[in-house]
Amino acid sequence: MEYTNFMSDRVKTMKGSAIREMFKRMADPEIISLAGGNPAAELFPGEELSKIAGKILMTSPTLALQYGTTDGYPAMRECARQRAAKVNSVTDDDAILIMTGANQGIDLTAKAILNKGDKIVVESPSFIGSLNAFRTYEAELVGVTVEDDGMSMEGLEEVLKSDSSIKIIYTIPTFQNPTGTTMSLAKRKRMLELASKYDVLILEDNPYGDLRFSGEDLPTLKSLDTEGRVIYAGSFSKILSPGMRLGYLVAPKPLAEKIEVLKQVNDVHTPMLTQLMCVEFMKKYNIDDYIAKNRDLYGKKCACMVENMEKYFPEGKVKWVVPEGGIFLWCECPTITDISPVVDRCLEKKVAIVPGSNFAIDINAPSNMFRLNYSSATLEKIEEGIKRLGEALTEML
Amino acid sequence: MEYTNFMSDRVKTMKGSAIREMFKRMADPEIISLAGGNPAAELFPGEELSKIAGKILMTSPTLALQYGTTDGYPAMRECARQRAAKVNSVTDDDAILIMTGANQGIDLTAKAILNKGDKIVVESPSFIGSLNAFRTYEAELVGVTVEDDGMSMEGLEEVLKSDSSIKIIYTIPTFQNPTGTTMSLAKRKRMLELASKYDVLILEDNPYGDLRFSGEDLPTLKSLDTEGRVIYAGSFSKILSPGMRLGYLVAPKPLAEKIEVLKQVNDVHTPMLTQLMCVEFMKKYNIDDYIAKNRDLYGKKCACMVENMEKYFPEGKVKWVVPEGGIFLWCECPTITDISPVVDRCLEKKVAIVPGSNFAIDINAPSNMFRLNYSSATLEKIEEGIKRLGEALTEML
Repeated sequence: MEYTNFMSDRVKTMKGSAIREMFKRMADPEIISLAGGNPAAELFPGEELSKIAGKILMTSPTLALQYGTTDGYPAMRECARQRAAKVNSVTDDDAILIMTGANQGIDLTAKAILNKGDKIVVESPSFIGSLNAFRTYEAELVGVTVEDDGMSMEGLEEVLKSDSSIKIIYTIPTFQNPTGTTMSLAKRKRMLELASKYDVLILEDNPYGDLRFSGEDLPTLKSLDTEGRVIYAGSFSKILSPGMRLGYLVAPKPLAEKIEVLKQVNDVHTPMLTQLMCVEFMKKYNIDDYIAKNRDLYGKKCACMVENMEKYFPEGKVKWVVPEGGIFLWCECPTITDISPVVDRCLEKKVAIVPGSNFAIDINAPSNMFRLNYSSATLEKIEEGIKRLGEALTEML
Repeated sequence: MEYTNFMSDRVKTMKGSAIREMFKRMADPEIISLAGGNPAAELFPGEELSKIAGKILMTSPTLALQYGTTDGYPAMRECARQRAAKVNSVTDDDAILIMTGANQGIDLTAKAILNKGDKIVVESPSFIGSLNAFRTYEAELVGVTVEDDGMSMEGLEEVLKSDSSIKIIYTIPTFQNPTGTTMSLAKRKRMLELASKYDVLILEDNPYGDLRFSGEDLPTLKSLDTEGRVIYAGSFSKILSPGMRLGYLVAPKPLAEKIEVLKQVNDVHTPMLTQLMCVEFMKKYNIDDYIAKNRDLYGKKCACMVENMEKYFPEGKVKWVVPEGGIFLWCECPTITDISPVVDRCLEKKVAIVPGSNFAIDINAPSNMFRLNYSSATLEKIEEGIKRLGEALTEML
């Protein structure tokens, strides 16, 4: 049977994330992956969560196994509220919705806002999962360049001024994926001014904000917002466990109400057990201590990666900005136009990196950039991986 | 701030399920709920799952807590395949995708197929969660009446003949929600003939198929399909735990590929721990024994409900068909046009039922029908609940 005629326009030309496709091929244990966005597994609190899960299912089986409410288990919503309040990112005008991972919050926010043909401003480059989510609503992505201190505000004003149909800006202001850059305070304030002036909303995606290992924390856009323009997406994936799929949205109540309906028809509610486990973990342990351990480890891993890049990369041929937190490092090779042959050479040498084209608005345009992840691999693997990557770069550049 | 202008057309007039809203108000422990779709909590294998979860997190913390693949953990896909194979509902041309509840499978199938304005045939009445999912893609719902032996095939042919733009039929052929009816074998065969003749797909939603407590099992539509027209949605919600949110899709590979991309941008993957728990449960225990216990209990509860309906309902004023399985019983009050006042009177008497309008294509049209659930309440509560409902009906009819 021929299925193409049955497919909606939104999926006809849609392809999955090449990164996640790459994961499937990486069963080869010899491959060192600097490609994913996995947090460090070595710190996962398996033993603590084992006891917690065992106890919950033994003492409250009905709560853990029966249907729950769409907006989330109340105590879990309170945990999310605490995380958001810690960065002044929730007001009385907001509602909190627990999501099955922050990505669901991004997806359903887009669904609640974007009609076919609507425009959304995004950082160029940006997180492929979000860009693809926007694409599935047949929205038009308007890219604005990311500079070393975040999205270009001149670029942003230019697009907002020239097109009054833009509804929303999507941004990862802190330790951006894929560039690792952080938007300066001045730019944060400016973005809010522009959002007000041109009457648009902002979707602030902040999965990495807790992971700063150098420099000073900056206020979130949500905390600077006085008009109710910012929808804030938080995540437990990088501060507890990605496999548990726990995230949350903080959104003005009228929007949250609509997003809740979309979640109801999507997965009804986030699994109860993982919500209850997160609640108990935050009750029994100080999650900020756990986050601090991760942060320290990521600082060490990042330093190790940079040190080995300086040692093994061909001199003067690769440019990068050292991130102050998060899990990604972004590299540019100004002497070439397309990194693909290097990526292929890397796979032969059994090291995986992600070509920049994956994060572009036009995924078919060649890119001379690539993304590295330093949170997942051990220090030894990082050194060996960067050494192999350095060899590939030296051979190919 | 005024948010309406920022909302997509799909959500502007969208309201949540009144049933799930009702759940929120049912904190009052005196209310007897015959309203939800909850399976019996008294049989949940809390102790078994407690040990399983504790062990998984202790021995395989990385597997349970790290990112997984979008299509599902391989052993979990194998579990889903076994369930589907048990009813001959998977072929080599199909792929299996693990979903965060079957509802996600329905939602994403709709997203992969329906453009704005596209038409989907649904049973009238049908499950509100699915109808609302279709509505969020701005599809047009074409209702076909459900008879005592399933969807009217004359009605179906009439709509298919008159409108060549219909792409897909959505059906719950076995123990339908909300009517509890089961489509006869002759109608199943006829539906496949019509699907072939008019070149449409079928989305078969089968969450209750394992719960037959009288009569003979009938083949699924998927098992009778020789052309690859049926997408099959299965669920672990009614045979293990709804709070775990585990379901699956069996779909022809070209469609499954697209749906997988939509899942990737939706929740990336289904939580790992609940998948691993299901795998271990099915390895260690015979899930069919567990299902058999549920089935027996539901048979008893259904009989108890019917017995008390006969005892307490005003004679000759309420019509129903006794179901052979599943969890729902559907009632009609032919002497009135609108059940709402009875529903309100019931809430005063602290018993909750769902008015038929919730399951209608036109949710604003009055309905003289209501849905009862017998799986959730205990036998004592069923008797007391039906007694109160009988009083309300006697007063109001």
